[in-house]
Amino acid sequence: MHFVAALDEQPRMRCVLGLFEGVVTGAADGYGRMTGRPAATLLHTGPGLANGLANLHNARRAHTPMVNIVGDHACDHLPYDAPLTTDIEALARPMSDWVGRVRGALTIQTDVTEAILAARFVGGQVATLVLPANATWDPAEYLPQPAQNPAPLQTVEDAIITLAANKIREAGRRCLILLGGSALRAGPMADAARIAHAFGTGVMAEQANARMSHGRGSCAPVRIPYGVDAAVAQLAPYDVILLIGAKAPVSFFKFPDKPHAVSHPEASVIEVAGHGADLPVTLAALREALGLSARSGVHRDDAPRTEMATGALSARTVVQTVAALLPENAIVCDESISSSHAFGLAARHAAPHDLLQLTGGAIGIGPSLSVGAAIACPDRKVVNLQADGSAMYTVQALWTQARESLDVVTVVLSNRSYGSLYDELTNLGRPDPGRNARTMLDITSPPLDWTGLAKGFGVAASVVTSTDELAREFARAIATPGPTLIEAALA
Amino acid sequence: MHFVAALDEQPRMRCVLGLFEGVVTGAADGYGRMTGRPAATLLHTGPGLANGLANLHNARRAHTPMVNIVGDHACDHLPYDAPLTTDIEALARPMSDWVGRVRGALTIQTDVTEAILAARFVGGQVATLVLPANATWDPAEYLPQPAQNPAPLQTVEDAIITLAANKIREAGRRCLILLGGSALRAGPMADAARIAHAFGTGVMAEQANARMSHGRGSCAPVRIPYGVDAAVAQLAPYDVILLIGAKAPVSFFKFPDKPHAVSHPEASVIEVAGHGADLPVTLAALREALGLSARSGVHRDDAPRTEMATGALSARTVVQTVAALLPENAIVCDESISSSHAFGLAARHAAPHDLLQLTGGAIGIGPSLSVGAAIACPDRKVVNLQADGSAMYTVQALWTQARESLDVVTVVLSNRSYGSLYDELTNLGRPDPGRNARTMLDITSPPLDWTGLAKGFGVAASVVTSTDELAREFARAIATPGPTLIEAALA
Repeated sequence: MHFVAALDEQPRMRCVLGLFEGVVTGAADGYGRMTGRPAATLLHTGPGLANGLANLHNARRAHTPMVNIVGDHACDHLPYDAPLTTDIEALARPMSDWVGRVRGALTIQTDVTEAILAARFVGGQVATLVLPANATWDPAEYLPQPAQNPAPLQTVEDAIITLAANKIREAGRRCLILLGGSALRAGPMADAARIAHAFGTGVMAEQANARMSHGRGSCAPVRIPYGVDAAVAQLAPYDVILLIGAKAPVSFFKFPDKPHAVSHPEASVIEVAGHGADLPVTLAALREALGLSARSGVHRDDAPRTEMATGALSARTVVQTVAALLPENAIVCDESISSSHAFGLAARHAAPHDLLQLTGGAIGIGPSLSVGAAIACPDRKVVNLQADGSAMYTVQALWTQARESLDVVTVVLSNRSYGSLYDELTNLGRPDPGRNARTMLDITSPPLDWTGLAKGFGVAASVVTSTDELAREFARAIATPGPTLIEAALA
Repeated sequence: MHFVAALDEQPRMRCVLGLFEGVVTGAADGYGRMTGRPAATLLHTGPGLANGLANLHNARRAHTPMVNIVGDHACDHLPYDAPLTTDIEALARPMSDWVGRVRGALTIQTDVTEAILAARFVGGQVATLVLPANATWDPAEYLPQPAQNPAPLQTVEDAIITLAANKIREAGRRCLILLGGSALRAGPMADAARIAHAFGTGVMAEQANARMSHGRGSCAPVRIPYGVDAAVAQLAPYDVILLIGAKAPVSFFKFPDKPHAVSHPEASVIEVAGHGADLPVTLAALREALGLSARSGVHRDDAPRTEMATGALSARTVVQTVAALLPENAIVCDESISSSHAFGLAARHAAPHDLLQLTGGAIGIGPSLSVGAAIACPDRKVVNLQADGSAMYTVQALWTQARESLDVVTVVLSNRSYGSLYDELTNLGRPDPGRNARTMLDITSPPLDWTGLAKGFGVAASVVTSTDELAREFARAIATPGPTLIEAALA
């Protein structure tokens, strides 16, 4: 409460309230992805942190810079085991890259500085700092300190660049450059496309990415599909995989009789640069090592602009409509789950945009991620393409969108089921579940009334049942400032 | 997914879907509190568990029996660090009394049995069992095993009973019997009331209790107030405090210049019986040691039945109206936070009911706890007296209430702020926060439209702005089967 009271003394600090901690951590993730700077979350003791952990997990997998301040009891009250007493550090560790505790009022400045530096460590980290109440009321003095810079990005050894260049020369189109993290920006993606053009090398992105420059002219590569069979098929041609800001590609889940790694079993997988390296510099160095100039031609997928969809409303026509009508420079927060790959393909030829994805598989990020992205970039339109089951996890984010008048258009793909789980059941050879299993997979009866829910949170909303209607409502929402929700009621 | 598919082979297993894990763990808590038997939750990997942790914290503090099954990757997939890979045990430990992992298909029966026995251990425990996917598909054979009984409740040594009896004889009205856990049922509370009647001894209950027989004729003692000053004042007369199923009373939070323990600094606090003891037997033994028969007179608060409230709608008239109109044998899930103490006092003279409270201070339990209580007791009316800020944490529980046609009446005390936090700020000497602090405390602009939200989840709803209107709507809701929500729009 002292921290809250102290906010009044820092009027430049923008305070954004979420009605649930998962909203807060998801929003901080969106802010960090779009600005590269950490937002601070304020969470309350172990349960408050616990409520935010799922989206911290996503943020950690996205390498988002973030500082979580978790209030705790006064140190000398902990032995009394008051009801809210919990082992906060134990809860924080699995979803944080750095965990610390303010030792007292006298060290608070040092401790906070350390947390911020940890959050800004190469590539971005989730830093969680426990703040015991006594540190906020014991006497202390503010001592101005010189600003400290975070650690510089790592540089990749020349020998590794030479090795990678040789592999590309030798393997040509049997070589894949797999991009992740900050390699998914215009500059490094163009360098990868130059290499692809000159040597026939494949270029792909990881299945889910924190932030990717996407759409027409971006040189964005296609992503590895989510499904294990599709991923294996897509990676089968490659004998060599060069990882640049990406991890070795693996199956999202393991299934009996299917592989762990989705690359060819005999492929050589080489880490050229981790996410903490300067990836644009790495790709430029690789291009130069291959004798290509920054003006050499790129391999470009010159398909025409995404066309308007026709036909009855379906997941396919929804993603195509959103891609076709996406405004220039939009930010897309994609949590469409079973439609995510289809949207990625459709949006490759959409107007240029940034694409933010579900990096850790912890569903319930879209509406919150959109909050943070919209706060980070008030001049850009945010589009949240959202699966219905997942949306329910942090649906309270709609209220923050209304409260802060954020420019977010949410399109809910309402299929009234955990569609991806039906796919997983099929993967396990149980495509036709019975009554009890269906109870766990269907979210019908009652159907969620998305317009009622959105309006209850203060967000304008409509429901559409045809592709044409969706196009009209989406275009109108894009043209209207402030938050809007459109439920695409799928058959 | 194998677990889900297997549910079809156990049609007697009742499957209840929650749209968020916090709903599921809160519902299991309500079920366990009302039946004394563990419900099983099914959660998915670390993030799914994390989403349920806040209500596990409450359940652990309530000593509720519960088994959580947390699905994990196949063991041999963990080293590949797929996106959802997390340290599930580390997350589970702070909010579980017992944590285990199924070692494989061959041990699954033993491991599950162990988890259930742990959940049914004396007084009830939160048991969390991690289930790696491979254990569900590797070959195994079902071997019928003899049923195993949980450990018997502990018996309190005669010497302790004698010591406690002597203290009561010596200290008389300067002695307080503090009850918690299963001591808050009709039988043991009556025994405590007999002792109070004969010796002038005080009897109180802990500030928050898992389940308490309450209302007219129940001999329910008053609860220790939440506020530290009020608690200190209430406990000041007592030189001796005998704990029977209760913990030594401490301040919920520590404030500068206020004490940790709320008992008198020189009071002698004696644990007569922990929550794992047979508390009804303990109180009967204590009564007998004091020479009282099971038919001796009780100290009873013979105030008339709670009267109807009059005057403008306020938190006071809401709690009084609910208490006055509470039907016989209702179950009240009280998460009214800043009105909880007032409701407790008003409901002492209401029709007999069970009172379920927020035991761990992790807000966001009421709507979910009501789900579990209603499933446990389909013939009883459940009333959820609910603060608005807290309701938002697991608001998705309304959908499960609709889906399962549960007999739950939710009364939202809508003050559009985190009212208790304003109280805490005052405790810290900052009663008048500025703009930034108020941003963190008010949930106005936009106001939550509770009727819209409830209907969006499929629950009939209305808003009331006067005490008379509340009485009418509440009486109507009580008379109507199925879930209803009433927003009491406070000034």
